[in-house]
Amino acid sequence: MEFLEHLNWRYATKAMNGGKIADDKIERILEAVRLAPTSSGLQPFEVLVVKGEELKNKIMPVANNQTVIRDCSHLLIFAAWDNYTEERITDTFKSMYAVRGFSEKWDEYRQFLIKSYTGRPAEVNYNHAAHQAYIAFSFAIAAAATEKVDATPIEGFNPEALDELLGLKEQGFKSVLLLPLGYRDTEKDWLITMKKARKTKGELIKELD
Amino acid sequence: MEFLEHLNWRYATKAMNGGKIADDKIERILEAVRLAPTSSGLQPFEVLVVKGEELKNKIMPVANNQTVIRDCSHLLIFAAWDNYTEERITDTFKSMYAVRGFSEKWDEYRQFLIKSYTGRPAEVNYNHAAHQAYIAFSFAIAAAATEKVDATPIEGFNPEALDELLGLKEQGFKSVLLLPLGYRDTEKDWLITMKKARKTKGELIKELD
Repeated sequence: MEFLEHLNWRYATKAMNGGKIADDKIERILEAVRLAPTSSGLQPFEVLVVKGEELKNKIMPVANNQTVIRDCSHLLIFAAWDNYTEERITDTFKSMYAVRGFSEKWDEYRQFLIKSYTGRPAEVNYNHAAHQAYIAFSFAIAAAATEKVDATPIEGFNPEALDELLGLKEQGFKSVLLLPLGYRDTEKDWLITMKKARKTKGELIKELD
Repeated sequence: MEFLEHLNWRYATKAMNGGKIADDKIERILEAVRLAPTSSGLQPFEVLVVKGEELKNKIMPVANNQTVIRDCSHLLIFAAWDNYTEERITDTFKSMYAVRGFSEKWDEYRQFLIKSYTGRPAEVNYNHAAHQAYIAFSFAIAAAATEKVDATPIEGFNPEALDELLGLKEQGFKSVLLLPLGYRDTEKDWLITMKKARKTKGELIKELD
């Protein structure tokens, strides 16, 4: 039951106390991000890690002034590729060849992906890449819980303003999700006393036959 | 390191051996799905669980004839709300009131969500709901790994054909993701001998200051 105990412990922390996360814990959370599965293994995103007060304070206003941005220890920003390109796909396959060795079969698959993806509108490709970022983001949330590190999953922010602030557009990325990591402020967090509210199993899950 | 060991153990299983998953393991994987965080706690999806051979065999052709659909123990189908509606939002809040009690503040939030969401195009709302399904799907993948249950994350299938087969459209759902759960076929799975290939930490994660 251990994993479920961690998931029951976690909640979307609404106030953090400024406490710092030990390096080994952050490393393990980021390793879970790196190990997350993605479509064709492309990992079409990057994760930006912000620790400095100055930059966190600049980001807070584009994220509805949520104080967890300021009071977290590490702010993770998941930014997806704005499009799939031949170069990006090939670079990823080169990383894979470094681990698995080159093979004709993989290279055929690389060419198949280039053909399939580069003919699609950028928006379709960005949305597909953003989905992969959601998987990595979810792995980070789960990993943080196993480390007893609090996290606040945030979809609600102004991505265009954040992209502008960080110069992401020029680099071919778009911000998708924010994940402040830190420690709950047990005095100030209004959500901390609330019971976890979820649909019942019967409401959410249906057996089909 | 335990969670990371599970994540290193897992891989996108390409062939399963038909072995059945014990009930307690499936219950814990589905409980992880139920505990996954979602935007405003709406859990705007359902998870269909298919065990029967007949239905799995009907689904296989709309999922590129992937044999894991047939040879898995339990096939999970994540289907998102096709739209946010006043009724759906209110029903979810009623579930929450049952756990946390009714409050004026939560009811104001319910009304705020209804106002914000029901004015948006159905497609925008479906995409938002589908993102939440990705989080639950990711939690299922992670939970399965902790149970030493194999899983095959599948985005590539024909969602319209599956919706038609299962009558999901009439129920206001659209299939988003498939997750066959079962046990790897160590003889037939071509991926089993391959090293896990991921970008390096330096390629994927960047510190900003």
